[in-house]
Amino acid sequence: MTIQLIRVGIIGCGNIGADHIDRVAHQISGARVTALFDVATERVQELAAQVGAAAMATASEVITSPDVDAIIIASPGQFHAALTIECIAAGKPVLCEKPLAPSVEECEAVLAAEQAAGRRLVQVGFMRRNDVGYRHMKANLNAGHIGDALILHCEHRNPDVPDSFTSEMSMTDSVVHEIDTSRWLLDEEIVRVRVIAGKQSPLAAKHLNDPQLVIMETQSGVIISVEVFVNARYGYDVRCEIVGSNGVTSLGAQDLGQFVSNTQRNVTMPANWRVRFSDAYRAEIQDWINGIQAGEPRGASAFDGLAATVVANAAVQAVKTGETVEIPVLEKPAFYA
Amino acid sequence: MTIQLIRVGIIGCGNIGADHIDRVAHQISGARVTALFDVATERVQELAAQVGAAAMATASEVITSPDVDAIIIASPGQFHAALTIECIAAGKPVLCEKPLAPSVEECEAVLAAEQAAGRRLVQVGFMRRNDVGYRHMKANLNAGHIGDALILHCEHRNPDVPDSFTSEMSMTDSVVHEIDTSRWLLDEEIVRVRVIAGKQSPLAAKHLNDPQLVIMETQSGVIISVEVFVNARYGYDVRCEIVGSNGVTSLGAQDLGQFVSNTQRNVTMPANWRVRFSDAYRAEIQDWINGIQAGEPRGASAFDGLAATVVANAAVQAVKTGETVEIPVLEKPAFYA
Amino acid sequence: MTIQLIRVGIIGCGNIGADHIDRVAHQISGARVTALFDVATERVQELAAQVGAAAMATASEVITSPDVDAIIIASPGQFHAALTIECIAAGKPVLCEKPLAPSVEECEAVLAAEQAAGRRLVQVGFMRRNDVGYRHMKANLNAGHIGDALILHCEHRNPDVPDSFTSEMSMTDSVVHEIDTSRWLLDEEIVRVRVIAGKQSPLAAKHLNDPQLVIMETQSGVIISVEVFVNARYGYDVRCEIVGSNGVTSLGAQDLGQFVSNTQRNVTMPANWRVRFSDAYRAEIQDWINGIQAGEPRGASAFDGLAATVVANAAVQAVKTGETVEIPVLEKPAFYA
Amino acid sequence: MTIQLIRVGIIGCGNIGADHIDRVAHQISGARVTALFDVATERVQELAAQVGAAAMATASEVITSPDVDAIIIASPGQFHAALTIECIAAGKPVLCEKPLAPSVEECEAVLAAEQAAGRRLVQVGFMRRNDVGYRHMKANLNAGHIGDALILHCEHRNPDVPDSFTSEMSMTDSVVHEIDTSRWLLDEEIVRVRVIAGKQSPLAAKHLNDPQLVIMETQSGVIISVEVFVNARYGYDVRCEIVGSNGVTSLGAQDLGQFVSNTQRNVTMPANWRVRFSDAYRAEIQDWINGIQAGEPRGASAFDGLAATVVANAAVQAVKTGETVEIPVLEKPAFYA
Repeated sequence: MTIQLIRVGIIGCGNIGADHIDRVAHQISGARVTALFDVATERVQELAAQVGAAAMATASEVITSPDVDAIIIASPGQFHAALTIECIAAGKPVLCEKPLAPSVEECEAVLAAEQAAGRRLVQVGFMRRNDVGYRHMKANLNAGHIGDALILHCEHRNPDVPDSFTSEMSMTDSVVHEIDTSRWLLDEEIVRVRVIAGKQSPLAAKHLNDPQLVIMETQSGVIISVEVFVNARYGYDVRCEIVGSNGVTSLGAQDLGQFVSNTQRNVTMPANWRVRFSDAYRAEIQDWINGIQAGEPRGASAFDGLAATVVANAAVQAVKTGETVEIPVLEKPAFYA
Repeated sequence: MTIQLIRVGIIGCGNIGADHIDRVAHQISGARVTALFDVATERVQELAAQVGAAAMATASEVITSPDVDAIIIASPGQFHAALTIECIAAGKPVLCEKPLAPSVEECEAVLAAEQAAGRRLVQVGFMRRNDVGYRHMKANLNAGHIGDALILHCEHRNPDVPDSFTSEMSMTDSVVHEIDTSRWLLDEEIVRVRVIAGKQSPLAAKHLNDPQLVIMETQSGVIISVEVFVNARYGYDVRCEIVGSNGVTSLGAQDLGQFVSNTQRNVTMPANWRVRFSDAYRAEIQDWINGIQAGEPRGASAFDGLAATVVANAAVQAVKTGETVEIPVLEKPAFYA
Repeated sequence: MTIQLIRVGIIGCGNIGADHIDRVAHQISGARVTALFDVATERVQELAAQVGAAAMATASEVITSPDVDAIIIASPGQFHAALTIECIAAGKPVLCEKPLAPSVEECEAVLAAEQAAGRRLVQVGFMRRNDVGYRHMKANLNAGHIGDALILHCEHRNPDVPDSFTSEMSMTDSVVHEIDTSRWLLDEEIVRVRVIAGKQSPLAAKHLNDPQLVIMETQSGVIISVEVFVNARYGYDVRCEIVGSNGVTSLGAQDLGQFVSNTQRNVTMPANWRVRFSDAYRAEIQDWINGIQAGEPRGASAFDGLAATVVANAAVQAVKTGETVEIPVLEKPAFYA
Repeated sequence: MTIQLIRVGIIGCGNIGADHIDRVAHQISGARVTALFDVATERVQELAAQVGAAAMATASEVITSPDVDAIIIASPGQFHAALTIECIAAGKPVLCEKPLAPSVEECEAVLAAEQAAGRRLVQVGFMRRNDVGYRHMKANLNAGHIGDALILHCEHRNPDVPDSFTSEMSMTDSVVHEIDTSRWLLDEEIVRVRVIAGKQSPLAAKHLNDPQLVIMETQSGVIISVEVFVNARYGYDVRCEIVGSNGVTSLGAQDLGQFVSNTQRNVTMPANWRVRFSDAYRAEIQDWINGIQAGEPRGASAFDGLAATVVANAAVQAVKTGETVEIPVLEKPAFYA
């Protein structure tokens, strides 16, 4: 047997793109970075030189390059659908950062293209599915340790955001992770969402509702309560608890070591999501590469990406209107079963 | 100086009444039990014999007895207001178990009587104010360690309830504690409440919404989210977290010791509220006795009792209607400042 | 039935004596403080006035006063044996702070006097037996959750000590608690001790070995390892773990609440032993009072006090010589069975 | 720039060898497995087929193969030195599992060979140096958060061992990890060791001292206390605490997720060292590969391997004699500075 070394092209070399370049180059087995594209020409050339990859002139060049077996899309969200469809057209596996696309229509176009292509090529970058904490929760639930799931409590706290960040982006950029995680943990769809704008943090931009409390419900009636707070200042803190009919399983704050002095036990927390989910990102990309080598899709599918966008957009509507928004349940094509 | 030994009469000798008898007789400094009343004549005589108290024929006899300096009311809620007013008429300090009364009108009658008497005689049994965990949270908030309070998350889980327990009682018997705790921690009033009936636990009685998610808001906009689950089965678990603009302070699950075996660390939790809040009850009653000796009122006042009933009744309305209920802010008489 | 209100005399009104006065006056059921003695005349008069007790001219006056039913001895250790024997002669129950006496001979004199008196009157103030954490460990061990006890690990850390504190006092004042706790947890005697003086803390007095590692062994071969560190600075931290053949039970650091800010979770620890063992002291004295009322001895006996002194003195010998010291096993008189 | 893909040969395909094959093939960036050797011919052929490597007839063939750039030695300890010297002779980097060699003489032969070769080629597999928990402890110590290190407490508990495991192997196979970790954390040498055989676990083989307490001291007087217990049954549990003059930093039990039911919080622990140190092994090998690509040595050196063997052998002597064994401090060649 021969192990194929997957040659990866990466489109979009901002924060997360650069992290992915480093991961594929230095932390992942069975892969190497061969091609990069970003509109910031100088930056991409520098990054390319560091890992021995080619800096290409367009995203399409990366996708169609004979030196590229698979593509990671880490460009801004509005380009995701079109680029993903190009990858499908080229017959190459693609890991698209969330969201699959900002609009439902674009997501549906991706699903149509993938189904027309006749094989699963698209994975969406919901890396929490690869976090050991979430995986233990899912294992505990599936093992019957806590009975039936009844409530999900989630906290999503981020230290700060740029001034351009809006109340709607709290849904599409932040809560979208809880949307995917909930669907994955509970294995059912979300049908209702309302958003309560609480007392505004004095440290948040004037235009921003922050924190917000998002209340969702699933088909079977499970309540999902999400606090999203993007100016939490104190650190990056993501927690989750499933309340079951017979017990509880939870994911606590992540501890990065501790020392004691002056009558205080000081436990270090992650400063941001890059630290918190560093292992999950690595596991996600490794799993993606392993899946390509094994010829089988892994992780969140294009359908999961569509479902997340549907719910996130409903949450945006809820932010705008202050009303409860009902969400029609999507029919899942057999192709994604 | 002479320390006065407070002679306590106790009305209502059910579960919590019997606990109070034991506490005053065996765990509290500066007090003794001298008189008891309960409709269960045999039981009360047995309890009276155990602590050297008199079993009296009526509640009024206890209240007016020359051997009684102060009264604890632990009878069913519908009798609270009338008995409390009798204590005021007798000029004796009274610790009334929550609720002060089920109806706003009765609560107001108590306040009127107390104000007419011209001095503070009534304390309401919101024992969580004496729990060390809640006190540390309040201290952390007041010390400025977490900035401004923005959100309060509460979990209130009870292992089981009798069949007679209703969805409304989840508000008046359980959530009423979070209502008082929130007012006390935040030092402001609750103005809005809605209740979401989630997926019903398969272990709950058919007529009971359980768990329920209660969302309240305060005058300044702080969101209070309370999960109340009275068939949680796994144990008694009360938690609380204040999310501030600059940090977080929280009250975790109570650990009663641990052992490790078979690749599991087993941490024992309280089986019920009597175990969980045993120390808080003792501290509450000690504080009440100390206050009587010092001639100054302590703990939750009749006004706090009224405010809790107002909000709890609004929550009952929210359960019944499924609507958001607005709560008018009470004016606090100077007498209770 | 009549509950007897125990009138307590307290001899020695320094730090711990004053705490005991406050406890008996304000935190304990069924007792009041009636008489005090201390060589510091002004201080004792002030304390007496605060609790309505008489300040007496001598310790003997307290012991023989008709207004005193029971005595707490909190004077310096060298007076303990003589005062305890006086209490026995007066036929009154006595709670003697540890040590029962600094010398084995004095301890034996107390046992002889008590046995001659024909009834158990002496309790030694090893309050850790009343700490809930230690009690849970003992319960877990006795319930068979961890198999046979094989090793005991103890940490005993104190923030600081006066300059007069010596390496030997680390044994007689500090480790003596672990000596009693070990005997009580394991229900067997200690037969061997060695003491290793580690690297000296730069913050310790020049003449003081600090920290020290004490290794003891019991009759059945259980190893007890005690780190004693009286200049730990960071706080007061007492921990214990029993390693069994099938599991482990432990007592961790005590948390006094927490808040999170600036990527640190800050957990407050006790600053000193008065905070850490405040509840245990109260429980100990309440239990002592309850035992007097019930006419039955509780807590650590004079024999336990003797045994602790024997082992502590052997540890002092080990400090002085650097050698392993063998400890003859005491025969326990049937009187103490 | 071109990233070199390191072709790795692995000698010894037992438990840990097989794990390493899997790691290099599927979890490590910049490397692939090209050649394997093990005396178990069938097994090695099966493993080779799985990863597309060649199964070779001798270890020397692996070392000298032109398809092998670097070697991992995971064969039994008695072969380590000779194989490592062969790798040096071939001018190829080698990661030798601990111990570098069972005897001091063999270790010294490796150092001599490496120095004669004129460049650092040898890394010893002390993977704990790559564990995030230990790294946080070292960072806290080095940052001055806890003052000067005074005591190190270590627990090393393993669920069970085969009957062939001896009291001496507890030193050379288990405690050797604490020996290396201590030297690395404290950055000084161990000069004294004694071993106390405690009460034997009823579940241990008759010939085995288990648990044992190992007391070591460093040049500056730091005491290192190691409990080693290879029949702990309940799980794999490695803990460490550095006690400093001003604070404490520690590595607690590893939690693998939790659920709560039946008044117990159940925290899952690792069942064995492969689970516990899985991430550390991966990080170690990735770091080794990165070091090869960067042309600079990383991790524990041959000198560290020698030092560990010197101390472990002294501990064996201490087990055999029951005496305290003094350990001469090795002079560190400038080559290893």
